Amino acid sequence: MQVIPPALDRLIDDLGKLPGIGRKTATRLALNVLRRPVGYAQELSQALAELHASIQLCSCCFAFSESDPCGICADARRDGELVCVVEEPGDLMAIEKTASFRGHYHILHGVLSPIDGIGPDELKIQELIARINSGTVKEILIATSSTVPGEATASYLIDLLQNAPVKLTRLACGIPMGMDIKYADRHTLARAIESRSLAK
Amino acid sequence: MQVIPPALDRLIDDLGKLPGIGRKTATRLALNVLRRPVGYAQELSQALAELHASIQLCSCCFAFSESDPCGICADARRDGELVCVVEEPGDLMAIEKTASFRGHYHILHGVLSPIDGIGPDELKIQELIARINSGTVKEILIATSSTVPGEATASYLIDLLQNAPVKLTRLACGIPMGMDIKYADRHTLARAIESRSLAK
Repeated sequence: MQVIPPALDRLIDDLGKLPGIGRKTATRLALNVLRRPVGYAQELSQALAELHASIQLCSCCFAFSESDPCGICADARRDGELVCVVEEPGDLMAIEKTASFRGHYHILHGVLSPIDGIGPDELKIQELIARINSGTVKEILIATSSTVPGEATASYLIDLLQNAPVKLTRLACGIPMGMDIKYADRHTLARAIESRSLAK
Repeated sequence: MQVIPPALDRLIDDLGKLPGIGRKTATRLALNVLRRPVGYAQELSQALAELHASIQLCSCCFAFSESDPCGICADARRDGELVCVVEEPGDLMAIEKTASFRGHYHILHGVLSPIDGIGPDELKIQELIARINSGTVKEILIATSSTVPGEATASYLIDLLQNAPVKLTRLACGIPMGMDIKYADRHTLARAIESRSLAK
């Protein structure tokens, strides 16, 4: 007995492949699409169909962009001597939202993860070295996440770039803004104590 | 400064209209689609484009179906004298999964919610009455959710069908299977006591 029409089932299957979307959520989303006017499904369909066609990787920083070089790399007002190395395009977006960084980026497109077969060759690391060798970069700000694979990737980069003619920096690690010290985990608190800064 | 390419931004906007998907989740999903081979986006796009074209409402029970009448209404082995009234197509799927119900369904496509302007005329209630008047139905099992609007809809239906020539039943309410009584909320526990059944 076919309770779910095949066309709906196919959409549920496809949505269920997205991260964090299980079959139950996929079913809820698909039924929601079906309940809306047909225009919404058509609009979403078209946005998906055109996605890859109009977006490419910037050949300099490897961000997703509709132009090459991307808007950030092409922006003369930004500081091309400072390059922030991030794991994913989403990290770039998060940093841009702070409006605190006026340099360029370099997107690794992943983190080192031997268990998943992701070594240095799977990331944009050779491209980073080529960028450094081109001579325009003066500082590399390593902004990988403060997770185990993020830290491992950062350590690898620091080793690799030990003798490169650039200043190497990392994001500060410490108590998040607005957090009560009581609720900070002990590793973060220990790191905040080690990295304490002068108050006056 | 355009950080998010317009084509990506458009997909994020569209995905963010789905229930439970905020802008952050929509961004994560859209970036995930972008990282996958282009085939996935095309497949999802096509599933969405074809969704409404191949799915219609069954003119008898108002389930989503590729045929009219739907597979359940057309199935001669099912009991057309027993009709289970549910809020949404998802409820039908949940009941079908139990394999405990062999009757037909009637989908209201919503619940009464005066605050959202949803009155009886917005639901498939006239159609339910027409079905009862056609004379084939002997029992109406009201299976709306045990939520405030679900209960209100059930009460409305019970009032409305008071003198209809059918038996009116409701889903049993009580302690969920496998739940420790200590953790049941007091309303559920009170209902389970009121509705206690003979043990021997």
